[in-house]
Amino acid sequence: MGTVVALAGQVGGAKLADGLYRLRRESLTVIVNTGDDHQHAGLPMSPDIDTLLYTLAGLASAEAGWEPANETRSASAMLRALGGPDRPIVGDRSLAAPILRLDGMRNDRSLTEITRQFARHLGIEARILPMSDDPVTSHVTTSDGVMRFHDYFYELGCEPRLKAFEYVGASDARVSDEARDALLAADLEAVVICPANPYHVIRPILAVSGMQELIRERRAPAIAVSPIIGGQALKGSAPKMMRDLGHEASARAIALEYYKLIDGFVLDRADATLAEGIAASGLRVRVCQTIMRSIGDREALASEVLDLAREIREAREVDEGEEGGA
Amino acid sequence: MGTVVALAGQVGGAKLADGLYRLRRESLTVIVNTGDDHQHAGLPMSPDIDTLLYTLAGLASAEAGWEPANETRSASAMLRALGGPDRPIVGDRSLAAPILRLDGMRNDRSLTEITRQFARHLGIEARILPMSDDPVTSHVTTSDGVMRFHDYFYELGCEPRLKAFEYVGASDARVSDEARDALLAADLEAVVICPANPYHVIRPILAVSGMQELIRERRAPAIAVSPIIGGQALKGSAPKMMRDLGHEASARAIALEYYKLIDGFVLDRADATLAEGIAASGLRVRVCQTIMRSIGDREALASEVLDLAREIREAREVDEGEEGGA
Repeated sequence: MGTVVALAGQVGGAKLADGLYRLRRESLTVIVNTGDDHQHAGLPMSPDIDTLLYTLAGLASAEAGWEPANETRSASAMLRALGGPDRPIVGDRSLAAPILRLDGMRNDRSLTEITRQFARHLGIEARILPMSDDPVTSHVTTSDGVMRFHDYFYELGCEPRLKAFEYVGASDARVSDEARDALLAADLEAVVICPANPYHVIRPILAVSGMQELIRERRAPAIAVSPIIGGQALKGSAPKMMRDLGHEASARAIALEYYKLIDGFVLDRADATLAEGIAASGLRVRVCQTIMRSIGDREALASEVLDLAREIREAREVDEGEEGGA
Repeated sequence: MGTVVALAGQVGGAKLADGLYRLRRESLTVIVNTGDDHQHAGLPMSPDIDTLLYTLAGLASAEAGWEPANETRSASAMLRALGGPDRPIVGDRSLAAPILRLDGMRNDRSLTEITRQFARHLGIEARILPMSDDPVTSHVTTSDGVMRFHDYFYELGCEPRLKAFEYVGASDARVSDEARDALLAADLEAVVICPANPYHVIRPILAVSGMQELIRERRAPAIAVSPIIGGQALKGSAPKMMRDLGHEASARAIALEYYKLIDGFVLDRADATLAEGIAASGLRVRVCQTIMRSIGDREALASEVLDLAREIREAREVDEGEEGGA
C-alpha cells in the first residue's frame, strides 16, 4: 500500500476523504480548497479546511457536516448587537478555528503550519493541507456583475445567472512544499478528485500555479468521483451552476470537466446508463453507490476508488509488459 | 443638573455606574480601567469595559455580572481541542466584543472609538471611555515573583502573598481627549470613584499620566464609595490584597486610600461606627445601604452619592459666601 492524495472541499468531498482516511490513515494527504476563504468580523474563515478537520476528527455534525456537532449560536447575536456582521450566522464552536488561525497568522505562521497543528491536536493522522499558503479568492461574473463567490453564495443565494469563474491570485499562488512532496511521492497510489462542486472547490485547487503540472507528473492513476447523481447534486448548487455555464448537469459533464487530468471515473448506480459513453472516451469507469449516508458508505466508496486505481495500475503494467515483450 | 464622571471597573463599579446612568443618562461619562486587559487566544480582552457595556445595556447576567445573560460555553471547548488556551473559560457571547475589538484595532481605530461604537450600537447614551488608548498592564510583585495581575488572578487564584502593584505603561499613557473633556467640563457635578478593588481597578486609572492632576483641577466634589463592607468585599479578593499590603481590610482603609483626592465618602450601614472617625479627617461622610441587589438599589446608591456631592457643593458655596462677606 502506498500513499494517496485527495483533492477536496465541501461536505461530500470531506466524507470521501474520511473514507480514504479510515483505510489509509497517515498515508493520506488531503489538498483542500481555500478559494472560498473569507473574512467574518475580521476572522479568517476557511470553510473547506475546517469541514475537513471536523469530519476527519469525527466532530462534524451529522446534519450540517460543515460545522461541529452540538453547535450553538450565541456569539452571532452579540456580534450583531455590537454592530458586527449579521450574517452568515457562524456557530460558536465554528469560531474557535478562525480565532486561533488569526492568532497564528499574526504570529507569522503559514496556513499550512496552522492547519497541521489543528490536525495534530485533533488527533488526525492524515495531512490536511491548504491548496496554497498564498491567498486565492474565487470570483464569479454573473448577470449582476462581478463579485466574490462568497457574496454570490451567501448574500445572493446563487440567484444571478453565472457566466464565468475566476480564481483571483491563483496564478501567483504557490503549491506548498508539503503538497508538492505528496503529489511527487514515489509510492503514490492514487490521486482522488473527491465529489465536490467543480467550479468553486476543485478548479481553484487546479488553478494554483504548478498544481496541474504536478498532477500530470504523478506516478499513479487519478480518479474523479462525480458529485452529480441523476442530474442532481446531493446538496448544493452545482447543477444550477453547470446549466448557467452552458453544461448539462450530469455525471457525463463532470467526466468531461476532468477528462484531460484523470484516468478513471466513478459514478453512481443511478447514472449507470452513462457509463458506457464515458468509458468510450478512454476513461476506466466504475459504477457503484456514491451516496455516503453512513460511515460504512464512506469506506465502501473509498475502497471502490482505490480498487479502480489498482485496476488501472495493473492494466498499465500489463500494457507495459506487452510493450516490453513486443 | 450637570455632568457626572465615574471611575469604574468590576461588577460593583458597573452597578453603581448603572445607577448613575439611570439618573443622568447622556450626562454620565464612565472612565474605565484597562489595566486588566489581556490577550485570550490572541483576542484583546477588556473585561472591565465589557462589564460596563453589558451592565449599562441591561444585558449582564444577574449571577455573573461580568458577562451577558444566557451565556453558553461552546467555543472554549473547541479552542482547547484545537490547541488553544484551556482557561479562563470565556463564554460565547463574551467573545463577540473582543473579536470586533481586534478587527477595529487592526483597522487603526482607537479603543475609545471602538468602545463608543459598541455603546452606540447597544443604545447606551452615556459615554463609556477606556482610561487611556495606550496600553497599561497591572503587574504584581508577590512572594512568587513579579507577574501580570491577570496571571496572578486567573492562574494562581490570588494565592501568593502580594507585596506591591505596578502599572506598566501608565506613565507613558495619555488620558484621552474625551476623558479630559469630561473631567474639565464646566458643568461637572461630581466625580465618583465607584466601589471596586482599589489596587487593580481604581489605582491604574489614577496612574495614567495626568489623570490625578485633571481630577484635582475638577470643579466639583469627588466622592468615593467603599467596596468594603464589614471587612469584606461583596465579591472579590480586595480584603486579602489589602491585608497582604499591610492595610486593615476596612472602609476606613479605603477612605485613607483616596483621602487626598476626595471630598466625600460613602460607606455601608454595616460600617456606621467608622463614620465618625472618617469624618474627623475632614471628609464629608454618608452612611447608607451600599449593597446593590436590585436595580432600585443601584439608583438609590447613585442618588445618595449625588446628594452628598450636592451637600458638599452647597457647603462650599456657604463657605465662599461667608469668606466673601468677611
